Amino acid sequence: MFHVLDEDYFVSSAVVAPRNVQDVQAIMRLCNDFEIPLWPFSVGRNVGYGGAAPRVPGSVGLDMGKNMARILEVNVDGAYALVEPGVTFQDLHEFLVKENLRDRLWVDVPDLGGGSVLGNAIERGVGYTPYGDHWMMHCGLEVVLPDGTLVRTGMGALPNPAADPGLPPHEQQSNPAWQLFNYGFGPYNDGIFTQSSLVGVVVKMGIWLMTNPGGYQSYLITIPHDESLHQAVEIIRPLRVGMVLQNVPTIRHVLLDAAVMGTRKKYSNSEKPLTDKEIDGIAAELGLGRWNFYGALYGPPPVREAMWSVIKSSFSQIPGAKFYFPEDMPQNKVLQIRDKTLQGIPSMDELKWVDWLPNGAHLFFSPIAKVSGDDAVAQYQLTRRRSEEFGFDFIGTFVIGMREMHHIVCIVFNRKDHDQRQKAHRLIHTLIEDAAKRGWGEYRTHLALMDQIAGTYNFNNNSLMKLNETIKNALDPKGILAPGKNGIWPNSYDKESWKIDIP
Amino acid sequence: MFHVLDEDYFVSSAVVAPRNVQDVQAIMRLCNDFEIPLWPFSVGRNVGYGGAAPRVPGSVGLDMGKNMARILEVNVDGAYALVEPGVTFQDLHEFLVKENLRDRLWVDVPDLGGGSVLGNAIERGVGYTPYGDHWMMHCGLEVVLPDGTLVRTGMGALPNPAADPGLPPHEQQSNPAWQLFNYGFGPYNDGIFTQSSLVGVVVKMGIWLMTNPGGYQSYLITIPHDESLHQAVEIIRPLRVGMVLQNVPTIRHVLLDAAVMGTRKKYSNSEKPLTDKEIDGIAAELGLGRWNFYGALYGPPPVREAMWSVIKSSFSQIPGAKFYFPEDMPQNKVLQIRDKTLQGIPSMDELKWVDWLPNGAHLFFSPIAKVSGDDAVAQYQLTRRRSEEFGFDFIGTFVIGMREMHHIVCIVFNRKDHDQRQKAHRLIHTLIEDAAKRGWGEYRTHLALMDQIAGTYNFNNNSLMKLNETIKNALDPKGILAPGKNGIWPNSYDKESWKIDIP
Repeated sequence: MFHVLDEDYFVSSAVVAPRNVQDVQAIMRLCNDFEIPLWPFSVGRNVGYGGAAPRVPGSVGLDMGKNMARILEVNVDGAYALVEPGVTFQDLHEFLVKENLRDRLWVDVPDLGGGSVLGNAIERGVGYTPYGDHWMMHCGLEVVLPDGTLVRTGMGALPNPAADPGLPPHEQQSNPAWQLFNYGFGPYNDGIFTQSSLVGVVVKMGIWLMTNPGGYQSYLITIPHDESLHQAVEIIRPLRVGMVLQNVPTIRHVLLDAAVMGTRKKYSNSEKPLTDKEIDGIAAELGLGRWNFYGALYGPPPVREAMWSVIKSSFSQIPGAKFYFPEDMPQNKVLQIRDKTLQGIPSMDELKWVDWLPNGAHLFFSPIAKVSGDDAVAQYQLTRRRSEEFGFDFIGTFVIGMREMHHIVCIVFNRKDHDQRQKAHRLIHTLIEDAAKRGWGEYRTHLALMDQIAGTYNFNNNSLMKLNETIKNALDPKGILAPGKNGIWPNSYDKESWKIDIP
Repeated sequence: MFHVLDEDYFVSSAVVAPRNVQDVQAIMRLCNDFEIPLWPFSVGRNVGYGGAAPRVPGSVGLDMGKNMARILEVNVDGAYALVEPGVTFQDLHEFLVKENLRDRLWVDVPDLGGGSVLGNAIERGVGYTPYGDHWMMHCGLEVVLPDGTLVRTGMGALPNPAADPGLPPHEQQSNPAWQLFNYGFGPYNDGIFTQSSLVGVVVKMGIWLMTNPGGYQSYLITIPHDESLHQAVEIIRPLRVGMVLQNVPTIRHVLLDAAVMGTRKKYSNSEKPLTDKEIDGIAAELGLGRWNFYGALYGPPPVREAMWSVIKSSFSQIPGAKFYFPEDMPQNKVLQIRDKTLQGIPSMDELKWVDWLPNGAHLFFSPIAKVSGDDAVAQYQLTRRRSEEFGFDFIGTFVIGMREMHHIVCIVFNRKDHDQRQKAHRLIHTLIEDAAKRGWGEYRTHLALMDQIAGTYNFNNNSLMKLNETIKNALDPKGILAPGKNGIWPNSYDKESWKIDIP
């Protein structure tokens, strides 16, 4: 969808959409017989990271979501759901609304509601409520291994005594604790099925749902001065790790908000990256700061009031900081969207920023940062400087986890402009290199950059990669499953010959 | 220490205590050369599950803790520690006290302070503060693989640019985000190093510390009637999943508390399992309920008050429930200990219950339970009935995680009484079988029961075990590392010949 290389480079030769688990098993066996590379995807919406496209051109796309999109269970007492790959955040949310469960259970949602719950969790995507670490909040997997074997992890490996042994395994009633306790007995394997399709295709996943916290209030804190980023992050760190900031809040650069609310043309006719003065003008026009902190309070009024008084007095130290609730700023579309997102109501509007440029497409550069003013400022300065060098505006946000930030830099480009596409590619390549030199690594990336990033995680002669490769080759000896995903190439591939050239 | 079989059955032929990581690497290589089984342990204090003893008699014990017991870092801003295997909970707590950091950082501790922080986390032990799931709270591992290779997982795989390449890898300065972000890039491998020593020996581990919540209050709720267990658990479930119960609380059977405060002889001369009437008498004598709920409130006063008002009114529905703070009951040693434990101050006294019988030893039977009244009562009835059948008192506690309970049944026996030891063995064997028939599985077990429990996690022809075995054989082809641990036997072993007979 948002191609960085030529549109016909990362393309599947065919796409197969299994109707059920037995189909997945049969396809895996066939691909082994004929040694055909298979590229699984759930819904294909991890736009910014390659969508549904395969790393090896000509792979068979395995469209897991098209026909396997059932919400198999929503358990109110246990506060979890069991889903197939095609269930989107929107689907799950709508199900809760339709069943009158929304006053009891919330789904943590990422920026967009159209992606797969399962796909997002196994790619280790994040959301914005207290349940924002989707992988941490998953519980129990059903996986088809490369040889077609079906495995249930954790407590799922313990049969339900009520299960009908006459049914195929994937239809057998599962253990009642499968979605309640992650670890089961013995090694805990779930992680090796994430960000890799290393040794299996996940066909069912449990996900914990947040219970209604008994009260909610979102807010925006505007921070007028660019240089206050340092102070803001230093204020945030102790509040976040101390759970006064109860969820995954974000500090967004004003251009990200501006881009949601209008195209670049609306704000400027300049062909060059916007200057500080122009950016200040846009901020003033929108009533926003250079940085804008979107958060929320959860719980009954006394709890929210206790948290808010600490948050407000802490952020009040920042020169010019202003505090808003959604009703104070009805014209701020972003605040209206975030008010929904932070309480688990999915949105389809957040990605509007991609229309910043005509034929807008994007790539995400996503380094992990320490929650420190120094790191935030250094990453902001580096990524802004490099963006501008290549002719782009800096558009980014810091997504604040428990002890680190996912710094998400949105590289927006015109996908019909060959030259600009190449510049975007060169920019991200350069940033990865710059970041590694400073000890910063990315948590996820686009197909075209997987090898480069994997290559930066090279401590002790790539010993972690060798571990991954050994596991890969033992369980997928013909290398049919997602070859090249996140830099892991099976023995049967010559990884050098699949290198992506930097334009 | 607490032998179930003959004292000389699970015994090492030698114990080696490496001084550093290079020693561990050299030992692994030597054991490969000579095909010697190696059984790693940290401090060896997982009493109740086998202590430091190896599954295969004659293995070389690898005493990781004796000489490798450094607290490598305590980071205040990031609220984490990096520890070697020999660092105990007591050590880490004392370090915080000594460095005047205890007012900022707390360590989550299990019942006893003498165990290894690293060992407990990789065995997936639990504690009782909001950070009670130790594995969830770990961040970053350094591991020696069976071939001697050193791996750092997660962000640790990204070199620190300041690292001195002249140093051996394990001494090289690590990435600053290693203890801040678990997942890194690509497959997330940490789990395969837990409860198994499947493919590596962990030599360093990061652990997140809890920040001082700004206020604390522990409490006890006594529940006089045995049959109120059902109601109590039904009350607990929504409060726990909704985080009104902020930590990992416990519902303890009165005999567990009684045993901490005195030997069986102190309460009764009966040779038979105590009757309901006798148990009621003990409860009355101690001013306790048949069930006793130990919890805590965290945060500044308005937050604690909000939580407490909900908790108090909910539990007040239970007939005869009474509420106590530690100062209300100075004679209740358990409440005084729990008051410390629930704020991360380790204790050495909790295990006093093992002296319930002369020459007291114990085995833990630890099935996972749904947080439901029906499950709790069914598990209580089964385990009490079976305990009494074999001549034991029921002593147990329900440890309440987010969505499940670890039901810990303490089988206390006289280790010098051959017949009673055999009865304890037969009892746990019977319970495992009973539990599996009802779909309940154990989360951890003693050496003598590992094969049996692993055999119950047998969904789809043991497909999870086969996955584990494939990974094991690929990375430890000679099967030197912890053969038989949690039922995983390398190819080079005939698992049938290592079966433990039930007396």
